[in-house]
Order: sequence, then structure tokens, then C-alpha cells
Amino acid sequence: MSLPTITLTTDFGLSDAYVAVMKAVMEEIAPGVRLRDISHMIAPQNVAGAGYVLLSSHSFYPPNCVHLAVVDPGVGTSRRAVAVGTRRATFVGPDNGLFAPVLQALGALDRDGALQGAEAVSLENRHYHRASVSHTFHGRDIFAPAAAYLASGVPLADLGPPVEHLVIPPDLDPSLHNGRLRGKVIHIDHFGNAITNISRAAVCHVSHVQVQRVVIRELARTYADGEHSLVALFGSSDRLEIAAPNGNAAAILGVHIGDEVSVW
Amino acid sequence: MSLPTITLTTDFGLSDAYVAVMKAVMEEIAPGVRLRDISHMIAPQNVAGAGYVLLSSHSFYPPNCVHLAVVDPGVGTSRRAVAVGTRRATFVGPDNGLFAPVLQALGALDRDGALQGAEAVSLENRHYHRASVSHTFHGRDIFAPAAAYLASGVPLADLGPPVEHLVIPPDLDPSLHNGRLRGKVIHIDHFGNAITNISRAAVCHVSHVQVQRVVIRELARTYADGEHSLVALFGSSDRLEIAAPNGNAAAILGVHIGDEVSVW
Amino acid sequence: MSLPTITLTTDFGLSDAYVAVMKAVMEEIAPGVRLRDISHMIAPQNVAGAGYVLLSSHSFYPPNCVHLAVVDPGVGTSRRAVAVGTRRATFVGPDNGLFAPVLQALGALDRDGALQGAEAVSLENRHYHRASVSHTFHGRDIFAPAAAYLASGVPLADLGPPVEHLVIPPDLDPSLHNGRLRGKVIHIDHFGNAITNISRAAVCHVSHVQVQRVVIRELARTYADGEHSLVALFGSSDRLEIAAPNGNAAAILGVHIGDEVSVW
Repeated sequence: MSLPTITLTTDFGLSDAYVAVMKAVMEEIAPGVRLRDISHMIAPQNVAGAGYVLLSSHSFYPPNCVHLAVVDPGVGTSRRAVAVGTRRATFVGPDNGLFAPVLQALGALDRDGALQGAEAVSLENRHYHRASVSHTFHGRDIFAPAAAYLASGVPLADLGPPVEHLVIPPDLDPSLHNGRLRGKVIHIDHFGNAITNISRAAVCHVSHVQVQRVVIRELARTYADGEHSLVALFGSSDRLEIAAPNGNAAAILGVHIGDEVSVW
Repeated sequence: MSLPTITLTTDFGLSDAYVAVMKAVMEEIAPGVRLRDISHMIAPQNVAGAGYVLLSSHSFYPPNCVHLAVVDPGVGTSRRAVAVGTRRATFVGPDNGLFAPVLQALGALDRDGALQGAEAVSLENRHYHRASVSHTFHGRDIFAPAAAYLASGVPLADLGPPVEHLVIPPDLDPSLHNGRLRGKVIHIDHFGNAITNISRAAVCHVSHVQVQRVVIRELARTYADGEHSLVALFGSSDRLEIAAPNGNAAAILGVHIGDEVSVW
Repeated sequence: MSLPTITLTTDFGLSDAYVAVMKAVMEEIAPGVRLRDISHMIAPQNVAGAGYVLLSSHSFYPPNCVHLAVVDPGVGTSRRAVAVGTRRATFVGPDNGLFAPVLQALGALDRDGALQGAEAVSLENRHYHRASVSHTFHGRDIFAPAAAYLASGVPLADLGPPVEHLVIPPDLDPSLHNGRLRGKVIHIDHFGNAITNISRAAVCHVSHVQVQRVVIRELARTYADGEHSLVALFGSSDRLEIAAPNGNAAAILGVHIGDEVSVW
């Protein structure tokens, strides 16, 4: 029987050996495992962006995947390292809110961070770490081994003590102020589309979208829609995006990750 | 028997899940298929650049490959989605001229866009689309499934109605004006080499190459040739390139994709 | 029995077909070979950076790997193309010092470039080149075929005449001046950490690290250590790095590859 797939999502970039080393560590522990890159170009330390990219892709993988994601501003501090097992898949990475969007989409995490119908552990069992754990590269020394051991059949509960709550980042969801829904830009894609934390389910009707001083009226259906230089639309993952037909919206607007977007 | 290889060429970049999702869709439809990246860093919406990159690499793959290429400024408009079967390989992507260089090199397309000894269809059979087709991501919803079904043995003719002509982009080939051959820069590679649409076969003898106000005399043999800051040479794919020995020609010249290059 | 792994380390970038073509050439020669990317985003022509990246990753791969590395400012000149077999692994690439750090770490190369307990050849046997060798792309025409033939079992000695000395680049190691160890920045990683050629083994005690006019006192333990904007630490590969907690040290300092770093 073939081993499950492990996907990788990081902000490690591709100019170094960091990703290669994590993969080599996993292939040594779990020979024959299938490694699949989601992205290694998440903006450095953009936890929300990694959460979005994983949310937008996890459902395309077969059941029982292990999703390894490392965007980890707190490496070397006391932030927890976790593995979370759901009915659909297992998630391995730092406990910093990265998995909140996907776990909530799977119904495995409530708004306050309590796990529901899911099992989680803190990755404290040193038997499943690399022999020597650095202070700077937990991706290689803790997370990759955990993912590989899980993929090769080690029970989740063996990896450490149980955890019942996960960190929920502030600003995970948009909030309502004076009749306007205020969200923010969580990811800027390769084309300059600015993707927000506002999901299609969170809004009934959109007549105005404001980002910085620009107000966009009505939603477009496609990137090529209309004669306007900027459009707002729900993209391929049902998140509100600001796009520029055949242009780079983020560059045109000077918009950055974290900037506010409001809808009414 | 193992499934054929599918290659991927896109302008989707690597900062998002777009490529990963296309691959996951294909592996679900055609388990065991061999996916091989050519490039995902084609300049955004540079159809000619994708055409060049595919031209320069297709012959290194085994026969009967499926080459999936998605650089698609027209996604969501009425541009056609096509699959083209030749004796050598099958090509899947938007009908926007992307495949014209490689199909002409294979003798499967004439100068006016008529197919010769090749079979093509418009990808209209919804049975081979994803269940729900978005307006923004045909790579995932139409092209990747088509490539995967073809790789897994579905006959080309099942994917949609036959097509006999493909779009030929303006400026596909250089043209002759007053004894000078005028081409353009179609791709700038990672080293800053500016690659043109002028093939070795199109010119008998080159004594001068002009790009912007710079005239380069005679051709070099290698990137390291001579003491000059800029050289012109036929590169590893027999296209005229402007290069800077151990430097970045595009940055030195300020040259961009689409800029004119003339030869006499 | 499965074929050995071939790893790839280049400065070819990902915007072109160069890497894809090298891989296709290797898969044609050695069907079923396992290709593993280390990095293709080494800074253009930064031989020392490639040497560092290979040094920091080679030990994670199984024994008998073939490590193919092509950062090759001298392509088309008379620099030698080599394959070096050690007890641990085989290395294939240009003879420009790229392999010096890893070969010295393996005890296979002395300070003057003499091989010790290792076997090397100059890749001159045309039988193992591609039929037509270009002047511009030895990665495709000489190095990739050599790696693939070696992985498929061709004896090293068949590839060309023996070589006993390799090129040692100037400035491979830091040097002592007036009680200070002077090294240099050899790689800037994706996070802006500036990695030097100063190894943990080369220094007894570090009380000051100077880069440009900035002096950093004492070493940090992790990237997130302390309240300082800049820290110096031995990173995950035991090389001295200058880092900025949650920031980009190279950008803050304006530091570049080749800049001097001194320690006392």
C-alpha cells in the first residue's frame, strides 16, 4: 500500500536548501512518501497568507494527506509545535493560527480556538525529533520528522501530549462596524490580485468595496470584465479579491498585506 | 504500462496554490501520471514567451507527451480552449497563439493557422470539465482535466468539436523592411539574456544587430566571448539573443519584452 | 534495484526551460532516476553561494547520491568539467571551486586542491556528451548527461582522463589579520540572513562581529533573540550569519555577497 501524500507550504523561498533539506529528512524517515509542494513563496512570516493558500488548496488532495505548513515568526521562542488530526486530513506546523481557516472550514475548530471532533498534540516527544534540534530550523528538526512519521503510520497520540485549544489570530475574520464589513488583505498573488479575508459566505450583497481611498462599485464576474482599471470579485476560492484586468492591482493601488478592505 | 508525461508551462508563479491545485486535479484524474514542470515563471501574460519556452524544450521529452500550457490573458472571455494532437505530442491550452511556434516547428501548422496532419478540438465537452467551472481559473477547471484525461487515454475527439484553424498572433515572425529583418524580444531569461523571435534559419548572415540605439557588430560564439559588454549570439535554442558576458543585458540596455530588434 | 538520487543545484532560475531540459535529458538517459532539486535560485554566478548551499544539504541525502551543481561563469571558456567520486557521494560540475567546501568537509580535498581518497575525471569523453554540444549550455550537453550516466552505473573512469587537483577559489576560508578573523558574505538567504564563510570550527570565542560599520556584540541563540535589530549567530549549518529578528538583515545593512565580515 502506498504512503499518504505530504504537502508543503512555507515561506522558505527557493534560493536556499531549506526546502530540499526538509524533503530529504522526510524521505529518509518515510521512503516512498509522496511530497507535493503547495507553495514556498508565502510572503515572509505572513501566517494569514499561508492559511489562505492552504485553505484554497487542501480540498484538492486525497483524504488522509498530511499538510505540513511552516510560516513561523516565533521559531526559537515558546510557541507550541502541533499536529492536528481531522476526519479529512492531518496538519503539522506551528500553533500560530496558520491552520485556523482550514480547520474552521472543516468544522474542526470553533471561533474561540476549541477543537471539535479533531485530535491534536503538542510535538514534544523527542523520540520523533531529529537527534539534535537547532534553535533556528524547526522545519527540519521537528515539523518535517513529525509529518513523515505520521505519514508512515505513527499514531498522532505518540508525538506528544494532547492539546485542546489552538491559537486564534486576531483579525482572522472581518468584523462589522457601522453597517460595513471591515476585512483586510491577507495575500497578494503572483498577478497582483489582492485577496482578502472576506468570504462569499460572510456577505449577503456587495454594492461597494473600498480599499484605501478607492471605491469599487459592484462585483465583476471575471478578471477581464468591464472597462474598469480595477475590479472586485470573488475569486476561485470564494474570497473577495481586488484585481486589475490584465494589470497588477496591488501595484496600481500600492496595497500591502494587512491593509484594510471594507464592504457594504 | 506507465502513463505518458504531462509537462506544465504557465505564468502562474510560485507564490500561490494555483500550480499545486492544477497538479492535484490531474493526479486525481490520472493517478500515477508523471508531471514535469517546464516553467511557471513566464512573464505574466507573455504568450510569445511561453511559446518560446515550450519550443525550446518540447523535443527533450519522450514522444506522446501532453504539453499543458496556460498563459491566458483572455480567461473568462470567449477565447477558445483547445487540445491539438500531432504525431509527436499533444498540446492543451488557450487558443491564443501560444502553440504556434512549436506547431510550426513540427510542421503541423501553416503560416495562416491551418492545421496540417494534426487533429484539434475545442474543449467544450463538459463531461471532461470540473463539475463547477469558475470564470477565473480555467487552468484548474478545463485545461488540467483535459490534459489528465488525454494522458489517461481518452481520445482527443471526445473532448469537443473539431477545430481546423488556430489563432496566429501578429508579430509571430520577424519581417523584412528595407533590407533589415525586424523582430522583437519575446523572452528575457533569468540571466537577463534578451531572446528574440529571430531564428537561425531566418537569416543568412548577420553583420549588425540593433536593439534600441545600440548596434552590435558580428556574432559571438559564447556568453563569455570577447571583451565587449554586450554580445549577440544564437543561443542554445537557435534564437538570436542579446547577452552581456557575466552581466545582465536586459538591465544594461533597459530592454523589455516586445522591444524591437533588427538585423542586417 | 532503484537508481541513486541525483540532486540539482544551479543558478539557472525558474523562469526558463533550462532546468526542465536538464531533467528531461537525465530522465531519457536514466529512466526511473530520482531527481531532487536543492536550489535553482543561487545568485547568478555566485560559485561560493552554491558551494555553501551544497555543503549545508548534502549530508541529508542517502549515500551514493550524484550531486549535480552548475554555477558556471566560465561556460564556453577552457575551464574544466569534472566528476569527483568520494566514499560518500559523487559530484558533477565545473571545476571552479564550487565543490571545495563540501569536499573539504568530507576530507576529500586538501587546502591546496589535491584530492585525497577521492577519484576525479575531466569530462572529456564525447561518447557521454550530448551528440551536439553547444557553447552556451554545458548543463544540458555535458553535466546532466554525465550525472545521469553515473547514476545509471557507468564507471567514473569511463567519463574522461583522471584529475588529481581541483581549483581552489581565493577567499575560500577566512583569514587572520591583527587578531581578527576576516571572512565574507557568501550567500544571502530568502529571509535576508547574510551567511558568511566563517564556520563554528574556525573560531574559539566570538565577542564582536563587524559588518560594514556595524559592530554586533555577543552571539544570539535564535533569530528571535533579544531586543536588538541585528543579531549574529551560528545558523542551522554552523556558519556565522547576520540576521534581523523578523526583518531582513541584508536590506537593513545594505550588505551584498562578497562584503567583508570580521570577528574577534
